[in-house]
Amino acid sequence: MTRRIEIVEVGPRDGLQNDPVLLDTSVKLEFIDRLIEAGVTRMEVASFVNPKAVPAMADSIAVMEQVPRGRGVSYIGLALNERGMRQAIRSRCDEINYVMVASEGFGRRNQNASPRDTADLLRQISGLAHDAGIALSATISVAFGDPFDGEVNPAILAELAREAVAAGVRELALGDTIGVATPWQVRQAIDIVRGAAPDTRLRLHLHNTRNTAIANVFAAVEAGVDVIDASAGGIGGCPFAPKATGNVATEDVVYMLERGRFDTGIDLDRMIETARWLEETALKHPVRSALSKAGPFPPR
Amino acid sequence: MTRRIEIVEVGPRDGLQNDPVLLDTSVKLEFIDRLIEAGVTRMEVASFVNPKAVPAMADSIAVMEQVPRGRGVSYIGLALNERGMRQAIRSRCDEINYVMVASEGFGRRNQNASPRDTADLLRQISGLAHDAGIALSATISVAFGDPFDGEVNPAILAELAREAVAAGVRELALGDTIGVATPWQVRQAIDIVRGAAPDTRLRLHLHNTRNTAIANVFAAVEAGVDVIDASAGGIGGCPFAPKATGNVATEDVVYMLERGRFDTGIDLDRMIETARWLEETALKHPVRSALSKAGPFPPR
Repeated sequence: MTRRIEIVEVGPRDGLQNDPVLLDTSVKLEFIDRLIEAGVTRMEVASFVNPKAVPAMADSIAVMEQVPRGRGVSYIGLALNERGMRQAIRSRCDEINYVMVASEGFGRRNQNASPRDTADLLRQISGLAHDAGIALSATISVAFGDPFDGEVNPAILAELAREAVAAGVRELALGDTIGVATPWQVRQAIDIVRGAAPDTRLRLHLHNTRNTAIANVFAAVEAGVDVIDASAGGIGGCPFAPKATGNVATEDVVYMLERGRFDTGIDLDRMIETARWLEETALKHPVRSALSKAGPFPPR
Repeated sequence: MTRRIEIVEVGPRDGLQNDPVLLDTSVKLEFIDRLIEAGVTRMEVASFVNPKAVPAMADSIAVMEQVPRGRGVSYIGLALNERGMRQAIRSRCDEINYVMVASEGFGRRNQNASPRDTADLLRQISGLAHDAGIALSATISVAFGDPFDGEVNPAILAELAREAVAAGVRELALGDTIGVATPWQVRQAIDIVRGAAPDTRLRLHLHNTRNTAIANVFAAVEAGVDVIDASAGGIGGCPFAPKATGNVATEDVVYMLERGRFDTGIDLDRMIETARWLEETALKHPVRSALSKAGPFPPR
């Protein structure tokens, strides 16, 4: 009776989006293929936002045209507005992820919207995804701290969660966008969101900026969450902490969980290989995951 | 009612011992002084072992002669045998830490002793510390995994803990020497050792080799442990994983705990300064803590 923890691989989207190196579409497709070979079954691969603001995602339509279909993989595209939602639908994304913000300072600068604005817009455009029969999820960004405003009052999470439920969202991710969360905060946030949205599946989106991400995965899994975002190699820097690490690394999450007797469905050795391929061949700069440096244990 | 978690700073011993750079005694003393200024009150500063085997600790007697006394700091020296124990006593260490091994493969190669041997020797030499009135602690190394033998049967931890109690040890550290532990293992090990040594204070000695150390600190603190080893900057590589990170970083531990409303007595900003001083001035190579890269949160 092994408990399954589902990993949502975000390397091809959140990882690459914040990397200084722009990859060709063909290299992205090789990345995606390697992830599938490693056992990934859900992944973020596209973001339908302004290509001037996010050049690394400018080829999202081309990526979605060429991803391998029929291999049991669910492809997630990000949409922040009606235009993006329509593009995601046309591109045949299997899932669309919308982003709400938990705090004003970040919201204004990142998508020129308040928390309230992001909730209102979700209500307005969610019907497009529902009508297209595409699963709609939402991430609450800066849920654990805002680089401009500081601490975030967790009460806002309940409010946004209720809005997500009203908009027909079936899975809600709590995003530690700038990597400040502690496991106690994670546990509290999960409690609060569960209270507000008891039937909504929860997901955690964590960055390892301050080295707490693996502890936060542990706290989330202990609290019953069984969907975790992670990126191969831990790619995906934080624009607010340029020298810091990025998303929690898929292979680091897989190592801890599999050694803890959970089932992630992911082949650790192949994921480490993928991280090393990113470092040596695709991005040609060091990636920051621990497992790609230290190797697995026990020795094989 | 803030719970106090005591940090035992191990940078000047376990950190420097595995660093490729050998520091002059005067620079070690500056390091120690900076740690005291940051609020450290217990620290490992010396190891009375064969200077040929551990050149970085060859000046342990000189360090102990010059450490600032009367500032409320308890200095810990490591001793693995009678000769080391006598030197630690003569050097006026405030505490002596002995090392038992949980597994044969590592024990044979590291100190040419089986787990049983290390327990027997502890019984033989513990009286020296007791007669001198010096507090004696012990670390069980490779408690969570051995680089040669693989998994360690946690039953050995109970056995060694009982031996430690019989030898008059008042504080017992569980050492994840090669950085493989998961938080579930940490929780189980604490349970086992508590059962065997209910009156012995527990301490955790963690390495971040596979990015689990902060999660393990969290699990230990949640299980009621309130003494944690850590090194400024996270210095202290692992000879078995040369590219990997070292001891769990003091500033990373302090960040998580203080943000979680625990009291460590350590000034986070000064500890980050110390890590940056190590990187820029003392060791002249990057240190791997997250907080020295990302800075604290909330912004100040």
